Amino acid sequence: MKPNFSLRLRIFNLNCWGIPYLSKHRGDRVKRLGDFLNMESFDLALLEEVWSEQDFQYLRQKLLPTYPAAHYFRSGVIGSGLCVFSKHPIQEFTQHVYTLNGYPYMIHHGDWFCGKAVGLLVLHLSGLVLNAYVTHLHAEYNRQKDIYLAHRVAQAWELAQFIHHTSKKADVVLLCGDLNLHPKDLGCRLLKEWTGLHDAYLETRDFKGSEEGCTMVPENCYVNQRELQSFPFGIRIDYVLYKAVSGFYISCKTLRTTTGRDPHSGTPLSDHEALMATLCVRHSPPQHTPSPTHGPAERSQLISVLKEAWAELDLGMAQARWWGTFAGYVIGLGLLLLALLCALAAGEGVREVAIMLWTPSVGLLLGAGAVYLFHVQEAKGLSRARAELQHMLGRAREAHDLDPESQAALFLGQQEGGQI
Amino acid sequence: MKPNFSLRLRIFNLNCWGIPYLSKHRGDRVKRLGDFLNMESFDLALLEEVWSEQDFQYLRQKLLPTYPAAHYFRSGVIGSGLCVFSKHPIQEFTQHVYTLNGYPYMIHHGDWFCGKAVGLLVLHLSGLVLNAYVTHLHAEYNRQKDIYLAHRVAQAWELAQFIHHTSKKADVVLLCGDLNLHPKDLGCRLLKEWTGLHDAYLETRDFKGSEEGCTMVPENCYVNQRELQSFPFGIRIDYVLYKAVSGFYISCKTLRTTTGRDPHSGTPLSDHEALMATLCVRHSPPQHTPSPTHGPAERSQLISVLKEAWAELDLGMAQARWWGTFAGYVIGLGLLLLALLCALAAGEGVREVAIMLWTPSVGLLLGAGAVYLFHVQEAKGLSRARAELQHMLGRAREAHDLDPESQAALFLGQQEGGQI
Repeated sequence: MKPNFSLRLRIFNLNCWGIPYLSKHRGDRVKRLGDFLNMESFDLALLEEVWSEQDFQYLRQKLLPTYPAAHYFRSGVIGSGLCVFSKHPIQEFTQHVYTLNGYPYMIHHGDWFCGKAVGLLVLHLSGLVLNAYVTHLHAEYNRQKDIYLAHRVAQAWELAQFIHHTSKKADVVLLCGDLNLHPKDLGCRLLKEWTGLHDAYLETRDFKGSEEGCTMVPENCYVNQRELQSFPFGIRIDYVLYKAVSGFYISCKTLRTTTGRDPHSGTPLSDHEALMATLCVRHSPPQHTPSPTHGPAERSQLISVLKEAWAELDLGMAQARWWGTFAGYVIGLGLLLLALLCALAAGEGVREVAIMLWTPSVGLLLGAGAVYLFHVQEAKGLSRARAELQHMLGRAREAHDLDPESQAALFLGQQEGGQI
Repeated sequence: MKPNFSLRLRIFNLNCWGIPYLSKHRGDRVKRLGDFLNMESFDLALLEEVWSEQDFQYLRQKLLPTYPAAHYFRSGVIGSGLCVFSKHPIQEFTQHVYTLNGYPYMIHHGDWFCGKAVGLLVLHLSGLVLNAYVTHLHAEYNRQKDIYLAHRVAQAWELAQFIHHTSKKADVVLLCGDLNLHPKDLGCRLLKEWTGLHDAYLETRDFKGSEEGCTMVPENCYVNQRELQSFPFGIRIDYVLYKAVSGFYISCKTLRTTTGRDPHSGTPLSDHEALMATLCVRHSPPQHTPSPTHGPAERSQLISVLKEAWAELDLGMAQARWWGTFAGYVIGLGLLLLALLCALAAGEGVREVAIMLWTPSVGLLLGAGAVYLFHVQEAKGLSRARAELQHMLGRAREAHDLDPESQAALFLGQQEGGQI
């Protein structure tokens, strides 16, 4: 690789809102998205919520001349909704399905049936290894009383761990997707602190698009205005995140978003806004110190966010166990009821009623059994993530305690009577 | 690291057969296992089928002085059964739960409820990065008519992919576990060809233990002799596999197995035999060519096993779709039956019978719905693995065609009228 090596990457990300029969003007929007991607000729287009494989196949055919490589990440009952189109050959791909992803009995929310996942593509560009990740985390339906918070935090942790363990030899790491997390939400901070990924919106000096970089804006005619009541400019939940690893330096030259309208005609491409980033990868200048995540201040921040996530998962576990216990009691009651019905059926008086009630009781028992098993595995999943967090917390604390600078800070803090 | 660097690793692996209430003499065996591990003081002990977390906690307490680091991999409803004890600090750990793992309605087999997984530990030993993996794949209940074959092949592929993507910066890779695969089975060949892992039993010059390295032997009093009818020496399904990556060379100095008896007293530690390997890691000698997996012959082998696995997953997909369609028909019939019952209930004649049949019909409908959804996601999971295999097959073929040696072989083959 030449010493003055420089690589420009044009990236596109969009949550396409492609629910068959439910999303408005889906066919027309997919068609216009294809035209737009062909015209713009990005290096990589990463899409979420392409729920229909027919839509993917349509786009694949349409985009073939400009994006010869493409992949659809299949998962769950419905699918992960994730797909990618690349101008460059894809060397390898794989995926990781999140262990926790909502509840099967919340059918109207549907996330559980999607099998939400993170997809990984490995690309070799001018001798540089690029690991590109695309993901979509569990939706947030009620910010005030979010029953999925622990699941989303666990997903953010699994995502961070998957990136951490699979990108150790990559030169550049890119993560795009709909995280369903606001920038200051716990999951978002955890992901950034653990992986060291930078947020294109916060890093770029050349941003054009929606107010505050929001990716769901009230100007978009497909957006449910009630959901944005507390957020006059909208919310930012879709991201382009990146980092360079060994000897490389990456920066975001420009970042554009759509603004609730199609870039050309009047109606938008989706209920989310598209993100378009131009990234530039160069060799690190010799004076550049690429890892600011190892200082004592950064380590403190990491420790604090790991603790917060640990506490959230702990709460989630208590909740899961409560539901498990509740379902256990229902099973007990159901068994008693069944025994009673059998006794009544053996007698004379209310035999018919007893026989009629027998099948619903069995149904109740089976239902409660399924709920019990589900929450037992939920608690196990949360406990697994909590154990990983706890281990990393221990290691971060050890490193923090060993660090001479933080020891000096601790000493000063103690002298000043401060609590560390 | 010194140029004459050398590291000796003593590894222990055992499928512990620790099913609460079902496995014979469990408490006694766990106790004796603890004593044995303490006495032998291995570097790493990797265990499978420790289904009870109490057993793990008991061992943890008992082994604490000799193995200060330990981890239990939680997953599924019952758990993955995997755990590790290490003499050295564990830097990081994570796990990947297999997407496909049998059928929930095969309750008597129970694999689905375990959430079978692969666990990863990262250890730093004298400046060397060791990635140690422990796993347990779906059991084989009927070798002649194996309904889980496609799932086991998909698991072997997921395992291989997980190792491939997470070990890129590791110096040494170690995989131990019960693969439920005989050495020449498709899944085993796929795993070895794709990851380049070597089999300790085949590599070592100093083996002592059971005939042909078998890990389930007829001499073991806990083994069901009927299952070994076709295999007079037993079967080899537990493995120690390893490879060194960058600039290192690894060899298996000695491999020992138990032989159906406890190393000290008469009764065995489990229904499986334990594996005890001494591995030696050194810097590669300069003349050593560490990657024999890239020659045209090896590439041919890889292509052939990828094709075979692709075909097996394809068969599995057809089967999954058949079950999905069958469940779809049952749903249709169930709906018809419900409509008929409603009509009958509205009339006079057989109202009571119609009302009594209503609830079982709803049950049938819900059951068939669950089966339908399960097989849809099964087909998606198999299709995902097949797509990954197909992509790697394409790439291997491209590399094979570009290789001058294989082109010469092709030319010769064509001249001789041979089919390549």
